[in-house]
Amino acid sequence: MSPVDTEQRPPVCVLGLGLIGGSLMRALRRQGRAGYGWNRSAGAVEQAREQGYDVDSDLAAVLARAQADRALIVVAVPMPAVEDVFARIADVAPSCPITDVVSVKGPVADAAARQGVSERFVGGHPMAGTAHSGWQAGDADLFDGAVWVVADDPGGNPQVRALVERLADDCGATVVTAGSLEHDAAVARISHLPHLLAETLAIIGDRDDLAARLAAGSFRDGTRVAGTAPALVRAMCDANAPALVVALDEALELLSTARTALVANGSTEALVEAGFAAHRRIAEVRSAGQPEDRARPSLTHE
Amino acid sequence: MSPVDTEQRPPVCVLGLGLIGGSLMRALRRQGRAGYGWNRSAGAVEQAREQGYDVDSDLAAVLARAQADRALIVVAVPMPAVEDVFARIADVAPSCPITDVVSVKGPVADAAARQGVSERFVGGHPMAGTAHSGWQAGDADLFDGAVWVVADDPGGNPQVRALVERLADDCGATVVTAGSLEHDAAVARISHLPHLLAETLAIIGDRDDLAARLAAGSFRDGTRVAGTAPALVRAMCDANAPALVVALDEALELLSTARTALVANGSTEALVEAGFAAHRRIAEVRSAGQPEDRARPSLTHE
Repeated sequence: MSPVDTEQRPPVCVLGLGLIGGSLMRALRRQGRAGYGWNRSAGAVEQAREQGYDVDSDLAAVLARAQADRALIVVAVPMPAVEDVFARIADVAPSCPITDVVSVKGPVADAAARQGVSERFVGGHPMAGTAHSGWQAGDADLFDGAVWVVADDPGGNPQVRALVERLADDCGATVVTAGSLEHDAAVARISHLPHLLAETLAIIGDRDDLAARLAAGSFRDGTRVAGTAPALVRAMCDANAPALVVALDEALELLSTARTALVANGSTEALVEAGFAAHRRIAEVRSAGQPEDRARPSLTHE
Repeated sequence: MSPVDTEQRPPVCVLGLGLIGGSLMRALRRQGRAGYGWNRSAGAVEQAREQGYDVDSDLAAVLARAQADRALIVVAVPMPAVEDVFARIADVAPSCPITDVVSVKGPVADAAARQGVSERFVGGHPMAGTAHSGWQAGDADLFDGAVWVVADDPGGNPQVRALVERLADDCGATVVTAGSLEHDAAVARISHLPHLLAETLAIIGDRDDLAARLAAGSFRDGTRVAGTAPALVRAMCDANAPALVVALDEALELLSTARTALVANGSTEALVEAGFAAHRRIAEVRSAGQPEDRARPSLTHE
């Protein structure tokens, strides 16, 4: 890769125009920063063009353009498509810095290594989303106040990292650096396991007709993300299988222990007291880590 | 019990001024219906009096007044206090119709039978709440559009049932009738199990410092009710232990099966597809059951 001028804001080339990629295009426009994009399906491209976005469904052409102006390439395709996209970048855009917004970081870094683009790749993950997907679900404000994880694995290119951090900042997000595997272990706990628990709860509620009619606040909260497109949930959970198994085993152990106590002495005390204390500690970590004025806008997306 | 004139709206005597009892007092005022209340702790009584509510901390005096004007008594104390309150009602207010708003129905009906008030008792459960508790958390609009379950067990007093249904209606709720045990099995699925899953998720997120910092939408939704006062969660879960064990066993089985599949073939497909389908069916049940949707048959977007 050619040296990158980190004082510059190169154009941003967004590959994949789903919820995250589409929100990124809008956030760039809001910020007045140059961006253009690619999407495989012509439908999203057509919708985006109607709204005045500079997008195309010809990947080779978009990558050639990125190479010509040394754009920062953002890989925003689902995990199963990541490695093919890296291969195309390696062929057509050999001088561009690269990042991604995929929800796992270890497998993406592995794919980058296999395709020979590691020296100009720094992974990223904006912690924002809704239960909706696709270009139409995009929102210029999606990243406001959100955490944007930027990988700081040993040997990572510091110039590319600076570009990625500036991109996150331009989108209104707060950068948190973390190792790829450390990230994956954490998101298994706070993103992938919550999806599996929501699916589980939805199935159990659906088994009883009266239950489905009575479902109120706690059930609706607990199952909201079960409305996410299954392909997206599977893509992120399956890509993070090793870390997810660890979190799932912890859930099984806690619930089994609670079940034993409930049968033996009719009490949920241990689980409930520990859960309440944990909830309070997390709220303290969050309020300590996020200035109130940045934290507030993100509530509208959650 | 003396015959009840079901065309009348007798005064409502609310015993217990926490979130539900306190919201009931406010909803009655909003409706212009006479109500007065009792609470054991003087603090809530003082707060309520400052807001002009007719409340007292002397249970014998409040029950004597209820007896004098044949009030509809609403038992709104936590489950562990229910039986003592029934005993006091049996002594001091032997002619009043009685209902309750406790989150389990079988154990409350059993306590009513043991205290000899079954013939004038019909259980109820408004499916509404927040993560907050106490008088100050009360809200006149809490029951608007909520489901209010009214027990229709064999042998139940139809006059009392009519009074309870009118009360629910006055509070803006929609009545759904169900047997007490049928209710308890359903709420184990859609209220008590969600609480245990939320506690579990909070504990697992709290075990990893980075996870707590990254926690976003799906985690916050999935753990919201872990912020509920532990005593309230334990009171409702423990009182419904037999039904909750059934729901908990279903959760353990679904999650174990998912864990096995994830290890064996790296896929969460079965759980995710089933959860998404269940979520969609429940949404359909709910929208079919909502009165406002029935009132708009011309909307044909479905």
